[in-house]
Amino acid sequence: MENPFANPFFANPAFANPWQTHESRLVYDNPWIRVREDQVTRPDGAPGIYGVVHFKSIAVGVLPLDDEGCTYLVGQYRYVLDLYSWEIPEGGCPAGEEPLAAAARELLEETGLRARHYELLGRAHLSNSVSDEEALYYLATGLTQGSAEPEGTEQLQVRRVPFAEALAMVQRGEITDALSVLAIQQYALRHR
Amino acid sequence: MENPFANPFFANPAFANPWQTHESRLVYDNPWIRVREDQVTRPDGAPGIYGVVHFKSIAVGVLPLDDEGCTYLVGQYRYVLDLYSWEIPEGGCPAGEEPLAAAARELLEETGLRARHYELLGRAHLSNSVSDEEALYYLATGLTQGSAEPEGTEQLQVRRVPFAEALAMVQRGEITDALSVLAIQQYALRHR
Repeated sequence: MENPFANPFFANPAFANPWQTHESRLVYDNPWIRVREDQVTRPDGAPGIYGVVHFKSIAVGVLPLDDEGCTYLVGQYRYVLDLYSWEIPEGGCPAGEEPLAAAARELLEETGLRARHYELLGRAHLSNSVSDEEALYYLATGLTQGSAEPEGTEQLQVRRVPFAEALAMVQRGEITDALSVLAIQQYALRHR
Repeated sequence: MENPFANPFFANPAFANPWQTHESRLVYDNPWIRVREDQVTRPDGAPGIYGVVHFKSIAVGVLPLDDEGCTYLVGQYRYVLDLYSWEIPEGGCPAGEEPLAAAARELLEETGLRARHYELLGRAHLSNSVSDEEALYYLATGLTQGSAEPEGTEQLQVRRVPFAEALAMVQRGEITDALSVLAIQQYALRHR
């Protein structure tokens, strides 16, 4: 932003940060997340704590769409939920990688697909009460099929389904991964 | 589920949990989240760790819609993101509270609105690579206006806008909170 004062969020105290941070203590760190606890003064002036989960990667999701109107869903067991989940191809974009390159890499690793065209469908903050995780989701078209190369943490199944069926899976509650639902709903809205 | 074997996810080893958990260590706990690190064997047989963020509450979001086709957006400063965010009314449903009751409570606290009718719009897992956070989002209609009673952690502004404007804010990237986007997209899809 060139001139912050041109933005009412900066000039108007109603949009200013009402929190004060006093101390910050690292409580956990691994290759994917870092958790800290801050001593804060809350918006109402009372003392409090805030546990913040920092994500080291941006989440990137890809909705691939082939010339016959089919998309590709990836099935995997989600460890933290203890359930099997059908999702769009997605993964993490670590610091230093371009999100679009990460999206293309994840699409290739998980499905073997390469895309000639990418279009940003949207950007979201997935869980903003606790984490700073940001997600970008793309439409990928102009697909060609190669070989999938999943990571060691992934044991995947891939299904090619008409886009209308993926949308129906969302509506039936069979796809619950937020990033997948965001992308599928957004494409459906743009191309209704 | 009455008969688990009627579900192919149970009968088919392709859908079974490919992870093994060996030890689990609590690394952080506060009133909202609990973080643990598990020693695991990954799907490819290699040893590894998994940091899991457990949410003590379900996230509930409410898309209120009045008789004139307007919805209500709540603006607040999001501490973890360090940015001002416009969202649907939302909050946490702790264990023991009915999600619908929590949704009605959050709607009242944040906007002063009561709703005669609720309809489930969807259910999502917000960040399933790291956290088990589940979200439920509702449409609320038959609205009457009372007095808002925000929590001490909240310093809120409320805007009444036509639903079409809320959808346009999603499309322009001005609403990025995933739960809000999920609910607004879903309502737009159902009532296009």
